[in-house]
Amino acid sequence: MSRTYSRQFVHPVALLSVKYQDIENLATMAWVSPVSFDPPLVMVAVSPKRYSHELVEKSGEFALIVLSDNQKELSTLAGTKSGRKEKKWDLEPFKRLRKEPQIIRAPLLKECRAAYECKLVNQLTTGDHTLFIGEVVAAEIHEDVDPLILFNREYRKIGDFIARYP
Amino acid sequence: MSRTYSRQFVHPVALLSVKYQDIENLATMAWVSPVSFDPPLVMVAVSPKRYSHELVEKSGEFALIVLSDNQKELSTLAGTKSGRKEKKWDLEPFKRLRKEPQIIRAPLLKECRAAYECKLVNQLTTGDHTLFIGEVVAAEIHEDVDPLILFNREYRKIGDFIARYP
Repeated sequence: MSRTYSRQFVHPVALLSVKYQDIENLATMAWVSPVSFDPPLVMVAVSPKRYSHELVEKSGEFALIVLSDNQKELSTLAGTKSGRKEKKWDLEPFKRLRKEPQIIRAPLLKECRAAYECKLVNQLTTGDHTLFIGEVVAAEIHEDVDPLILFNREYRKIGDFIARYP
Repeated sequence: MSRTYSRQFVHPVALLSVKYQDIENLATMAWVSPVSFDPPLVMVAVSPKRYSHELVEKSGEFALIVLSDNQKELSTLAGTKSGRKEKKWDLEPFKRLRKEPQIIRAPLLKECRAAYECKLVNQLTTGDHTLFIGEVVAAEIHEDVDPLILFNREYRKIGDFIARYP
């Protein structure tokens, strides 16, 4: 089955921020979702090929930063370079928006829609990805900006209101 | 932490269709995502309180039907009634759109954005939900309709194009 199967889902665009010892990295993720209300848990699916994969396992924590629709450049920047070759946090757009976390060690970003500080509580291998399950230990939400959407390899804005979910 | 944390993510709206012996059910799900390219796997997070939870476990398979932005009524209908009390597939809107599957036993729907027939290959308890991991054994995609979005308890259309993801 081709990758087309995976392109029929709308996704948020999130940056996975990790810090292990003095190594920091950022990577772009679309396969993310809440997975529990109580405790509050989120999941992110990460390929074991990604540099961030080992940094999450080693540090046991991560931040998930839900980008706003003004931040597509950050998604593209973090998603098209490897942290093995380049320190992404040294790039100007990230340096400018960097914000220190409250509880974990991985840095956050300003001007996003939401940022979650997470402790890794479980993981599961699913085919060619690993599901990392994080407990949200701190969260900040900025309702003044709209979330960026990824759909069928296009960045999109959120569209017209249809109805309330009852 | 309140449920607000979970409302910052954009979601597709999917109907989970299950059939165990002669029992059929439909339930509305937003916590869904692809989780592997090869093999093609999807995950859906289901509360153990839901009737569909036991039907997925017993049957070992499920369909995931990604609704179009013309189908919000189906989401609301499947999401606000319990299959323990009512046979949802007997309701007129579902009866009218019912479509037989290729490989699994759970019925599909016409006029959706996409429909995936899945074999349950793994599951993981994450807090108050269970992640069911399904291998996609058949898929149909209808690119002539746009997907329905759920965000912050509102149905939304997909919005303006911003840029291609590189």
